[in-house]
Amino acid sequence: MSPFGPLNGRASKPLQFLTLAVGLLAMTVLSMPDPDASVRTAAVVVLWCCLAIYAADLSAKAWPRAGSQPNYLSSAAGIIDLLAVLPIPIALLLGVPAQTAWLLASLWILKLATAVPGLSMLGRVIALEKRALGSVIVIFLTILVLASVALHVLEGPAQPRQFGSLPLSLWWAVTTLSSTGYGDAVPQTFLGRLIAGIVMISGLGVFGLWTGILATGFAAEHRRRDFIRNWDLVTQVPFFKNLDPPTVIELTRMLRRLDLAERTVIVRRGRPGDCMYFIASGEVEVKVEPHPVKLAAGAFFGEMALLTGGQRMANVVTTQPTTLLALEVADFHTLTAHHPELARAVAAEAARRKGSSEKPSPPAKGKTRERKSR
Amino acid sequence: MSPFGPLNGRASKPLQFLTLAVGLLAMTVLSMPDPDASVRTAAVVVLWCCLAIYAADLSAKAWPRAGSQPNYLSSAAGIIDLLAVLPIPIALLLGVPAQTAWLLASLWILKLATAVPGLSMLGRVIALEKRALGSVIVIFLTILVLASVALHVLEGPAQPRQFGSLPLSLWWAVTTLSSTGYGDAVPQTFLGRLIAGIVMISGLGVFGLWTGILATGFAAEHRRRDFIRNWDLVTQVPFFKNLDPPTVIELTRMLRRLDLAERTVIVRRGRPGDCMYFIASGEVEVKVEPHPVKLAAGAFFGEMALLTGGQRMANVVTTQPTTLLALEVADFHTLTAHHPELARAVAAEAARRKGSSEKPSPPAKGKTRERKSR
Amino acid sequence: MSPFGPLNGRASKPLQFLTLAVGLLAMTVLSMPDPDASVRTAAVVVLWCCLAIYAADLSAKAWPRAGSQPNYLSSAAGIIDLLAVLPIPIALLLGVPAQTAWLLASLWILKLATAVPGLSMLGRVIALEKRALGSVIVIFLTILVLASVALHVLEGPAQPRQFGSLPLSLWWAVTTLSSTGYGDAVPQTFLGRLIAGIVMISGLGVFGLWTGILATGFAAEHRRRDFIRNWDLVTQVPFFKNLDPPTVIELTRMLRRLDLAERTVIVRRGRPGDCMYFIASGEVEVKVEPHPVKLAAGAFFGEMALLTGGQRMANVVTTQPTTLLALEVADFHTLTAHHPELARAVAAEAARRKGSSEKPSPPAKGKTRERKSR
Amino acid sequence: MSPFGPLNGRASKPLQFLTLAVGLLAMTVLSMPDPDASVRTAAVVVLWCCLAIYAADLSAKAWPRAGSQPNYLSSAAGIIDLLAVLPIPIALLLGVPAQTAWLLASLWILKLATAVPGLSMLGRVIALEKRALGSVIVIFLTILVLASVALHVLEGPAQPRQFGSLPLSLWWAVTTLSSTGYGDAVPQTFLGRLIAGIVMISGLGVFGLWTGILATGFAAEHRRRDFIRNWDLVTQVPFFKNLDPPTVIELTRMLRRLDLAERTVIVRRGRPGDCMYFIASGEVEVKVEPHPVKLAAGAFFGEMALLTGGQRMANVVTTQPTTLLALEVADFHTLTAHHPELARAVAAEAARRKGSSEKPSPPAKGKTRERKSR
Repeated sequence: MSPFGPLNGRASKPLQFLTLAVGLLAMTVLSMPDPDASVRTAAVVVLWCCLAIYAADLSAKAWPRAGSQPNYLSSAAGIIDLLAVLPIPIALLLGVPAQTAWLLASLWILKLATAVPGLSMLGRVIALEKRALGSVIVIFLTILVLASVALHVLEGPAQPRQFGSLPLSLWWAVTTLSSTGYGDAVPQTFLGRLIAGIVMISGLGVFGLWTGILATGFAAEHRRRDFIRNWDLVTQVPFFKNLDPPTVIELTRMLRRLDLAERTVIVRRGRPGDCMYFIASGEVEVKVEPHPVKLAAGAFFGEMALLTGGQRMANVVTTQPTTLLALEVADFHTLTAHHPELARAVAAEAARRKGSSEKPSPPAKGKTRERKSR
Repeated sequence: MSPFGPLNGRASKPLQFLTLAVGLLAMTVLSMPDPDASVRTAAVVVLWCCLAIYAADLSAKAWPRAGSQPNYLSSAAGIIDLLAVLPIPIALLLGVPAQTAWLLASLWILKLATAVPGLSMLGRVIALEKRALGSVIVIFLTILVLASVALHVLEGPAQPRQFGSLPLSLWWAVTTLSSTGYGDAVPQTFLGRLIAGIVMISGLGVFGLWTGILATGFAAEHRRRDFIRNWDLVTQVPFFKNLDPPTVIELTRMLRRLDLAERTVIVRRGRPGDCMYFIASGEVEVKVEPHPVKLAAGAFFGEMALLTGGQRMANVVTTQPTTLLALEVADFHTLTAHHPELARAVAAEAARRKGSSEKPSPPAKGKTRERKSR
Repeated sequence: MSPFGPLNGRASKPLQFLTLAVGLLAMTVLSMPDPDASVRTAAVVVLWCCLAIYAADLSAKAWPRAGSQPNYLSSAAGIIDLLAVLPIPIALLLGVPAQTAWLLASLWILKLATAVPGLSMLGRVIALEKRALGSVIVIFLTILVLASVALHVLEGPAQPRQFGSLPLSLWWAVTTLSSTGYGDAVPQTFLGRLIAGIVMISGLGVFGLWTGILATGFAAEHRRRDFIRNWDLVTQVPFFKNLDPPTVIELTRMLRRLDLAERTVIVRRGRPGDCMYFIASGEVEVKVEPHPVKLAAGAFFGEMALLTGGQRMANVVTTQPTTLLALEVADFHTLTAHHPELARAVAAEAARRKGSSEKPSPPAKGKTRERKSR
Repeated sequence: MSPFGPLNGRASKPLQFLTLAVGLLAMTVLSMPDPDASVRTAAVVVLWCCLAIYAADLSAKAWPRAGSQPNYLSSAAGIIDLLAVLPIPIALLLGVPAQTAWLLASLWILKLATAVPGLSMLGRVIALEKRALGSVIVIFLTILVLASVALHVLEGPAQPRQFGSLPLSLWWAVTTLSSTGYGDAVPQTFLGRLIAGIVMISGLGVFGLWTGILATGFAAEHRRRDFIRNWDLVTQVPFFKNLDPPTVIELTRMLRRLDLAERTVIVRRGRPGDCMYFIASGEVEVKVEPHPVKLAAGAFFGEMALLTGGQRMANVVTTQPTTLLALEVADFHTLTAHHPELARAVAAEAARRKGSSEKPSPPAKGKTRERKSR
């Protein structure tokens, strides 16, 4: 789409990661104390190339044109792109030695954050739980301050280089409370060690609280996110339109979304069946002999193995990038037990399709737009 | 309210944190081994100022007058305030050197505990799970004692300075079981190392139990707290009065409370809609052209994007400190699927308001007390 | 009950803990390298006393008599009691030096395990999750073996004292994988450090799996245990007999058991009400003027503050050891929304009691066996 | 089944573990710097034996014959078996010294992975949560790179051997962020320590996120796995066929599967009853006097103690490997409260059986195929 931007779009993700990895590697090589002159030159060349790629990418994205985001440079992604491009030339212009200036290439790692979809979920969890996390931080700080003052008083006279001032003592407290334990400062008196022991055990407790809060928040956010992702797809599957709304909601909570590349084998002949699948978008091919069947969006397959408790009877492969909604066997039984009309609908749909196609019942059948594959 | 107490009330929270930060910093500076005389004097002056502020605050709060808490000094907050004010002058009067006496300013950090609302929740979780946490502590102590005796026997003869007595050996066990690992005492014999390895792995197990218990307890407490916080607000929203009680309960579990400052942008035009909002208290302004609409407590907005699955059609901004109850899209669909009357009520309310105001349907509408903004 | 056993029964728990603490302290003192002769003698005397107490306790429990457990000595508690008493004299008889022999007093710590009720719950969780925990241990062992062989090959030639054999290398791997990190063995080669980094990050992952499994198992076990504890009590409260079985089950899941000592203040006048209480056993006194009211097992109180959303109107204090079932405000509203008959029953019961006693409505009312306190 | 394969089948599991343990021990002995010649020879002999056993096992499994897996060598288990057998002779043939070549026996530990059933569950959790776990890894990497560059700049000049290049600095960052803390590289400057403190605290946070994600994913996977395992068994128990489908689903979620060896005591006389049991396969014997009763698959027992709240009235022992489905007392009460017909069915079945057998009511009764034991 953009003339300059080879890094735009989904397909260029591996290229982005490669640029990042190569750039960071070159930065690392350049930081070595006495690099070989040729190695050094090569590293600098690589770094300039990466910088050029990022600059081209930035200018492509930021260039005002039809359909582009109006204020890209003030968005989070824009700021990260600016941080990737500007600081290094500025530092070089200001006369910072090249070896130091290129260390700013470490800011390129921030680009990873924009490439990872789940990061916003983590941000939301932290935002929602900020009240509880704040309490844990208060406990953390309280222990830190009180412990470092106590150790300063108790150990300071004997070990002035380790505990002789509060900053030194705080350093010890942080390394101990986080259970890092460098061992550069170790209390020697009895009371000092007693307090240190309490600090260590408190560290475990604080950490446990922290983990517990994040685990709780994450579980809730996860359910919410999955529902929204599934809901958008569920509304596209015609089969679900015949169900009453509460059943659709229940189903939406149970489905698991699968985004599959072309030519992925979804179901393998002879394997036990633990799922049925609804096609939200894309197309799959059921490899039945002699005439493979293609199923398009809106169809479902794999229900036979669940109904009979048996094995898969054919391979099913995607023919293009396809999004499926998988329904586990446990959820299938739960749904059909509570909503026998659903079981009937699946069976009826299967029978209808079997009738309309003139071949002996394939193990999996699409609802609409079936075609004999060539 | 109080003549002395500039630190009373919600608005002074930043001032409280500033006083605390400055005071602790001055204490830290004063603890340095050989501070400059002027720096030292400045630090002492700052510390006296902080102490004076805390003393004024305490006397304002503790002074018996109409409306004040009767026995403030025996409450937890009162004791913390006393601990902040009294020990330092007492220590100075008793002849403790100033540098040491001012270390008691570290007690000021306890004031953080009273400022953080979530701390009582953590206390409740620990109280509710005390039985299970007690078991973990017993396991912890048992491993500690048995391991330190074993290492004392095995390593004591070879390393008398590290394992020559039980307290020394216990010190090693605590640093190891908490996975701190200073490295000041390291077993050298084969059997000693074997036991040490078991202690380390047990440490992971004990910590895992601890975290698991806290996570479980926290999840339960969290749900309870949210319900109570929401319930008080839900009973104030007139719209909810028309719903049957079980639906109100269900809704209360789903809502998320948002406390927003003045001039906060809640909804941004063009963004996808993932929530609708009920105003529990305060006021918001819907920035529709040409006549922005103000919505007061009891109104709701943002439902349009959920019903249509589209984007937000206007910015919505708070005009004063406002408390909202947000209903996520997932929960909205769940509710309306099970309670179609709720969907009808939202639609009817929206239609009614559209009729009563004579402008073309704004993207979000308040239920009551709508006013044209000037 | 038993003539020898001052440590039997619930009331003697503090005494048991005291004996244990004193005994372990004496053992610690005795382990010091060059103790004072008098201190040493005192410690030995204390240890003999503790041993005598445990021996008396054991003989009292193990003595066959009417009502005693038939095969106490083969139960877990009996074996722990035997381990506390027998090894020390045997070691002394075998000529082990006193200082070493008395270290066997560390086995007394096992008595803690029998005193803590929650330990069996932890045991159950571990038993139920043994399949998943076993997988984590397999991952742990696999990383351990592969990493130590790799480091032995990579670092062994350069650091023979740290990585020169597999046991040495395994020691490093355990300290690293458990994130203890003594620092006594640190890889120096590039590849060694790369593998060490992977080991450290794997350690976090393994530990996370471990914690996740225990947290999941613990949550399930917790719910089960609470239900059983509550169910036994719920069947004793007459008020619950009038409810239909599904409501009783729902209620049982919501209640929280409180075991209170005599003279505990349950409810304080003027505090916000967040619970109502059912008395499962024991007795409480409602401090209303001028005639305090006593409520016995089967009664409930504290419902007024929930119904009105107001404050507590009187102190309520236990008059003897009492077991209460607390119903949180969130659960109360949920229950009454779904079961209006429950709200009516509470109100009717309250009215009935108000009528039968001739005083002006006390803030909390018992159902049965009300008495004017003297 | 296979003539070569003594390690095939379930019964040979202990033998497999023994071979593995002995082999790894011999490898460890061989790695010692200066082993005794005879010890060394013994270790090599043991290692050759283990290798022979694994080679025989592999050839037995891979040999094409009727009923064998067609492409065993390309399955995961087959590759692990190949890795266990081939590398060592190849290394020896290539002239690698024996002491080094035999270190490849560490690959045998991978066989553990195939022996543990729960490992695939862990794999599934990681696969399902890969999006969220990926975010955590991105956070981890970002902190790692930025912290190591900062420390390289700040500490590099003063401590060139610890922070003089980015790889050195990265090494410090990994040991610190994973809270291992060897202490071989410790920042000395104020700013360096400040950043190090932030890294340590971030380490706790990252780890907490990681644990929270795994805990959430594991809980969901656990429920799913249990349902599937139970469902297969539930459909085999005739008693459940009479229940309506939603009740069966509910029951399936509540049951816990127990796989017991022959002669296991399930229920002990005089113990409190907290479960009832359905026999999915196998046989148990109820030890009532004078005529023990045998119960076969499809029968249930242990319901009496739940109905009466009393104690177990007889021992129940398996007579062959048996799979039970246990229903906890909490779930039993919940089920019967919601489905009184279930309680009636249990009671009716019990009465029917009591009538058809002419003995005085045994404490537990089988539904079908009861036989007097000889």
